[in-house]
Amino acid sequence: MRKKSSAPTMKDVAAEAGVALGTVSKVINGQPVGESYRLRVEAAIRKLDYRVNSYAQGLKADRTYTVALLIPNTWNPFFAALIHEIHHALSRRKYRMLLCCTESDYASEQDYITMAQNNKVDGIIGLTYSPDLHVDKDIPFVSIDRSIGTHIPCVASDNFMGGHMAAEKLADLGCKNVAFLRTGSSLTNEPNKRKAGFENGCLVRNLHYESKILHDDEPLDGFEEFLSTHLHGGRLDFDGLFCVTDRIAYEALKILKKFRIKVPDEVQVIGFDGIRILGDADYLCSTIVQPVQDIAEMSVQLLLQDNITAKPPLVCLPVSYAYGGTTREELNI
Amino acid sequence: MRKKSSAPTMKDVAAEAGVALGTVSKVINGQPVGESYRLRVEAAIRKLDYRVNSYAQGLKADRTYTVALLIPNTWNPFFAALIHEIHHALSRRKYRMLLCCTESDYASEQDYITMAQNNKVDGIIGLTYSPDLHVDKDIPFVSIDRSIGTHIPCVASDNFMGGHMAAEKLADLGCKNVAFLRTGSSLTNEPNKRKAGFENGCLVRNLHYESKILHDDEPLDGFEEFLSTHLHGGRLDFDGLFCVTDRIAYEALKILKKFRIKVPDEVQVIGFDGIRILGDADYLCSTIVQPVQDIAEMSVQLLLQDNITAKPPLVCLPVSYAYGGTTREELNI
Repeated sequence: MRKKSSAPTMKDVAAEAGVALGTVSKVINGQPVGESYRLRVEAAIRKLDYRVNSYAQGLKADRTYTVALLIPNTWNPFFAALIHEIHHALSRRKYRMLLCCTESDYASEQDYITMAQNNKVDGIIGLTYSPDLHVDKDIPFVSIDRSIGTHIPCVASDNFMGGHMAAEKLADLGCKNVAFLRTGSSLTNEPNKRKAGFENGCLVRNLHYESKILHDDEPLDGFEEFLSTHLHGGRLDFDGLFCVTDRIAYEALKILKKFRIKVPDEVQVIGFDGIRILGDADYLCSTIVQPVQDIAEMSVQLLLQDNITAKPPLVCLPVSYAYGGTTREELNI
Repeated sequence: MRKKSSAPTMKDVAAEAGVALGTVSKVINGQPVGESYRLRVEAAIRKLDYRVNSYAQGLKADRTYTVALLIPNTWNPFFAALIHEIHHALSRRKYRMLLCCTESDYASEQDYITMAQNNKVDGIIGLTYSPDLHVDKDIPFVSIDRSIGTHIPCVASDNFMGGHMAAEKLADLGCKNVAFLRTGSSLTNEPNKRKAGFENGCLVRNLHYESKILHDDEPLDGFEEFLSTHLHGGRLDFDGLFCVTDRIAYEALKILKKFRIKVPDEVQVIGFDGIRILGDADYLCSTIVQPVQDIAEMSVQLLLQDNITAKPPLVCLPVSYAYGGTTREELNI
């Protein structure tokens, strides 16, 4: 470990590069400087292994190099993956992350916005549910999965395309009669587009479908009731299920097991999110995978690149299908 | 939502309580004040729903009301649960959490310690692996799972008892010949005590056991090789497995499935940690559950109660057994 006394300073870098101290400062702070100077300073930084003290830098630049992340919780594996990727995207830019699990406290969402107003954090990335969140125009804020207003960029998966893809996949795998199971927030948000995309895909592929939608406050038993009305002589009317999340797919698989229906032989099941068991082991089920790393990277880019004059109100990133044991591996009609 | 203009101030609280402004300030900052005054101020705070601006309070009290949490990552479900509970324990005390995923960067562990030295955070809770982490005596630091030095309190599950409990449980459930599967850090840490506890439990219950220990850098295939040498005519020599984590149990279950060995009929499996699928659904396997909430609460208490003169070097918290489908539900010899 390097001892404090031997840590190189900005002065050492200037001496090594043979440039003025101000030039080093400009390079470190990303200000314009002649290309040859920049290269010499960067070489000196590498050679001396000089590390910018980001806190001291913050004091000078009136920045805290801290970004707040508002997220419902950390135990949900999708949120856990998102936190990890956002942390990584911030770290690479020498930013720190203040984590706020908002689940039980909408007031703290507003509290963090006040912190941003007071320049105690440089910006906020939020996956919020508070129905009346107020974000001023001048606060750097990027919203994930939910549009808060046209002045706030929203980053999400291409949920419509994901729903469409699930329908196409079930059709490709030989399904003729499918069902869509959904529960979730009644807030207008991006994930709600999965339904429209799925219906669209079913229409395009001439696939018969039914939907069962449960509201947030209804028990998941509703899905068992729904499926049992479609159970005749031990066989289900449906040969494919698209579930709005992997969590719902997990519940559906438990119901099918209870009904002694074989997956994927009799019924194929596709979820949404791309959850892996233990965070990085097998997929929980066949699924439409959200591009978590891309969502994180895009959110951080939109938040920190304040020289972008026109920030897009909505950025949708491409999803992909992954086999996870609950669909047929190959086309086999 | 309350409008800014109507938010009650400390002055409003003083007027409501009929006390001087300084008295309100003392109560808020936890300084001694007559009991009857304290009760009147607290009643006024409740009545007006007065909220302390913790940042402004920080400026006055030379506190940041921010604690840094150093943890390898957020995608591992055990870490995700721990982060959630620590966040909750801090929030209830009006503290914020700076999250640092250290996985790929030991240097950032030391960076956060520097922040604590400079009073930019009030303290650090760390689950660290950096082999030569240096923490000064005067930095508020609580370590989870690993003793860094006698001046730093370490909070952990009672890992020895957990191992012992696993052996007792397998014996209670009729096992005669068991194996212990372990992989992990070669650092001296608390989870390593699971092995000693298990061996102790086997001795007490006269249970024959073998151990297979893989080092960090060895592939998990080693367990399959080990078990295959104990496979004779489609039957395994062991009727019980204790795995040092639920993750290893998950791998073991995959191997047993490959060998067409029925769980729990032919072999019973117990893991360690208490991981639930999707964060809050079913247990991944029968398991020794770590008291994550208690670990979080104890860590935060030890960190923030600076009036405790003698902080204990090691606090072990009680674990429990949970049935998760990979053991027999009841004694059935």
